[in-house]
Amino acid sequence: MSAVIGILGGGQLARMMALAGYPLGFEFVFFDPEPTACAGQVGELMTAEYHNELALEEFCQKVDVVTLDFENVPVETLRFVQKKKPVFPSPEVLEIAQDRLMEKQFCHSVGVPTTQFEPINSLSELKFAAKKFDYDAILKTRRMGYDGKGQYRISAPTDINQIPDELFAQDLILEKRIAFNREVSVIVARNGLGDITTWPLCENKHKEGILTTTIVPAKHSELDELTVACAKKMAETLKYVGVMVVEFFQTGDEVFVNEMAPRVHNSGHWSIEGADTSQFENHLRAGLNLPLGSTEMDGMAAMLNWIGAFPDHILSINTPKLYWHVYGKEPRPGRKIGHSTLLAPTAQELHDKIVNLVKELGVQL
Amino acid sequence: MSAVIGILGGGQLARMMALAGYPLGFEFVFFDPEPTACAGQVGELMTAEYHNELALEEFCQKVDVVTLDFENVPVETLRFVQKKKPVFPSPEVLEIAQDRLMEKQFCHSVGVPTTQFEPINSLSELKFAAKKFDYDAILKTRRMGYDGKGQYRISAPTDINQIPDELFAQDLILEKRIAFNREVSVIVARNGLGDITTWPLCENKHKEGILTTTIVPAKHSELDELTVACAKKMAETLKYVGVMVVEFFQTGDEVFVNEMAPRVHNSGHWSIEGADTSQFENHLRAGLNLPLGSTEMDGMAAMLNWIGAFPDHILSINTPKLYWHVYGKEPRPGRKIGHSTLLAPTAQELHDKIVNLVKELGVQL
Repeated sequence: MSAVIGILGGGQLARMMALAGYPLGFEFVFFDPEPTACAGQVGELMTAEYHNELALEEFCQKVDVVTLDFENVPVETLRFVQKKKPVFPSPEVLEIAQDRLMEKQFCHSVGVPTTQFEPINSLSELKFAAKKFDYDAILKTRRMGYDGKGQYRISAPTDINQIPDELFAQDLILEKRIAFNREVSVIVARNGLGDITTWPLCENKHKEGILTTTIVPAKHSELDELTVACAKKMAETLKYVGVMVVEFFQTGDEVFVNEMAPRVHNSGHWSIEGADTSQFENHLRAGLNLPLGSTEMDGMAAMLNWIGAFPDHILSINTPKLYWHVYGKEPRPGRKIGHSTLLAPTAQELHDKIVNLVKELGVQL
Repeated sequence: MSAVIGILGGGQLARMMALAGYPLGFEFVFFDPEPTACAGQVGELMTAEYHNELALEEFCQKVDVVTLDFENVPVETLRFVQKKKPVFPSPEVLEIAQDRLMEKQFCHSVGVPTTQFEPINSLSELKFAAKKFDYDAILKTRRMGYDGKGQYRISAPTDINQIPDELFAQDLILEKRIAFNREVSVIVARNGLGDITTWPLCENKHKEGILTTTIVPAKHSELDELTVACAKKMAETLKYVGVMVVEFFQTGDEVFVNEMAPRVHNSGHWSIEGADTSQFENHLRAGLNLPLGSTEMDGMAAMLNWIGAFPDHILSINTPKLYWHVYGKEPRPGRKIGHSTLLAPTAQELHDKIVNLVKELGVQL
C-alpha cells in the first residue's frame, strides 16, 4: 500500500492530512501559490498559481491522486487536474460549495432546511429583501467568504447605507438571521464504495466570525438525529468522496444548514486525539476507496483555537491529555496559527480542565 | 516556541520523532549517508558520510540542536557537532552505549547487575572463558551489533571451531547465557533540569534476535520496582538527556541488564497511541529542557513489528484501535519496515484482539 497524494493548498489542513497519512505509508506533494505555505515544512511544496497549467501538469505527474485543503481552489483548476488524475472531492461538488446561493439551492433540492435567503445583485434588491427579512439579516458575498470575511450585518435600514458600493460588483446573498440556540457541525466521511460514517456531533462557539472552541460530543438534543440525517443525505446525494462538514443552527425545534465545507474542517480537529480515527485519516481512506476507520470516541474532547498569537510558553504547560498543534505559520491578527485538544472522561471534568487551562495560560477564549 | 532539530540518522526513529515534533511547531533536518533514508520522505534530508566535516558544518548551521536516531553514529561525529550546537545524548554516553564491555562495566560501577561477561581478544581467551561459562554463552562483537547481528551462540566446545577467524580482528565479549523468565524494557526520559520519568514496563518477545512484540504494561512481578530503579539510576548517573531504554532479563528472583539504547526504542513505539505522551515527543521535550509530558496509559497496548514484508491489504483491516505505522522503507528480509499498535482496555481483550488480527492477516508472529 503506497500512494503519492497531491494536495491543492498548503495550509494547516494539508499539513495535518500529511501528518495523518505518513504513518500509513503515503507520500505528499503540496501545491500552493504561497512559497511560505506551512505544509511545506513537512513535505514537498510546489509554488505556482492555480492557473499555471505547466506547473499543474508537473504536479499531476508526481502524484497518484489529488485532493484539496481549501474550498476556494478554482473549479477550473480541479477540472484540469481531473483529466490527468483522480480528484476528490469532485469539481461539481466544489462548484456548489463555493457559491452560497447554489449551496442553499442544493439543500432545498434534497429537502434540507436552510435559513431564508435572497440573491442580491443591486442596492434596490438589497433594500427590498432587507425589508422582507425585517431588517434582521446578514449580507454575504456568494463566493470566497470564510471565517466571517465578506459579511455585513443588517439590523436597521441605515445599515444599508454603510455597505460599500463596490461590493455590488460581486454576486451577493442576503440571509435572514436566526435566533439559534447553538451551532453544531456534522463531520461526514464517505468513500467511493458508498460507505458513509459520521463522528459524534460537534458544538461550536465563534467570536467575531471565527471558530474559537468545539466541544464533542455536543450535549444531546432531540434534533441531533435529524441534524446528522441531513448531513448524510447531502453527502449521499452529492456522491461525495472524502470528508465534508455541514454546519447547522439548532433552534428550539428546528434545524437549518448554515454552510457546508467540502473538506476536513476546523471543528473536526479534535478527532486527531479524540476519536479512534481522525478526520484527516478518514479523508485519505475515503479518497483511496479504503474502508473507513472507526469514528468512535471514549470520553469528551474540546478543541481550542489559537488565533493571532499563542499564549507564552505553551509547551511548558503540563496538563495530561492536552495536545498542542502548532501550524508553523507566522502569527498575524485574526489568523489561525494552531489549536489545542483537551480530552477528559466527562463533561464536568472537561469543563474544569478548560477553566484551569485558560487560567494557567492567562487567556480569554 | 520553535526550534529546528537536526537528527543524525534518517531511519524510522528519526521519521517518528519528526511526526511527533511537527505538531509542537518544530522543524527537522535529517543527516544520513543513505539518499533513500526513509525520514527524507517527511522532511529535509542531507546525504553525506558521518565523517564529512563540511557537510556536518552545513548541517549545524541549519539546526538549533542535534540528536540521533542511531547509536552507531561515530562518537567523533558527535564530538565535532557538539562544538557547534547542543547535542543530546552526549558523546560520552554514546561511547559507553556503543561498546558492550564499557556498558557492562558502567552498570557494575553503579551497582546494576548484568550477566557474567569476559572480554575476548583471541581464540585462546574464548576457549578459556567458554569453559568458565560451562559452554552456555553468547559471543558478541563489542561494537556495531544490533538485532542479533554479530552474535554467535556457544553451546558446546565444538561451537568454538565454527567461529570465523576474521571475527577476532574485532573486539569481542563473551556473555554467560541466562535462563530468564522474560525480557522487559524500561523507557526513561530525563531532561537537562533533572526531571525524570518512565513509561509502564514493557514486555518484549524476540524471534531470531529481532523484537517481534511488546506488551504494555508487563504483567506485574515482584522484580519490577527494582528493574525500574536500575534504569533510573543508570540515566541519573549518566546525567542522560533524552529518552534511553534499558533491556533487562528477569529470572525467578533476579534482574540483569541485557543492554541499553541511548535513543528512542522499538519497544517504546506503542507509546504513540498508548500513552499520554509518546517516547518521541518526550525525547524532544527532554532535549529542549521542556517539562516532560505524562507517561500514563489508560489500558493495555501491544506493538507488533512488521519485519521483511507487510501482510496483504493492511489498510483494509478495519479493527478499531489498531494503528498502522509504515516506515516507507523498501522491504527486505529481516528488515523492520513498520509496526502496528493495538489498544484494549484489559489484558484478555488485548490478547483476543491479537489472536483475531493474526488470523485475519494470515501471519505468524
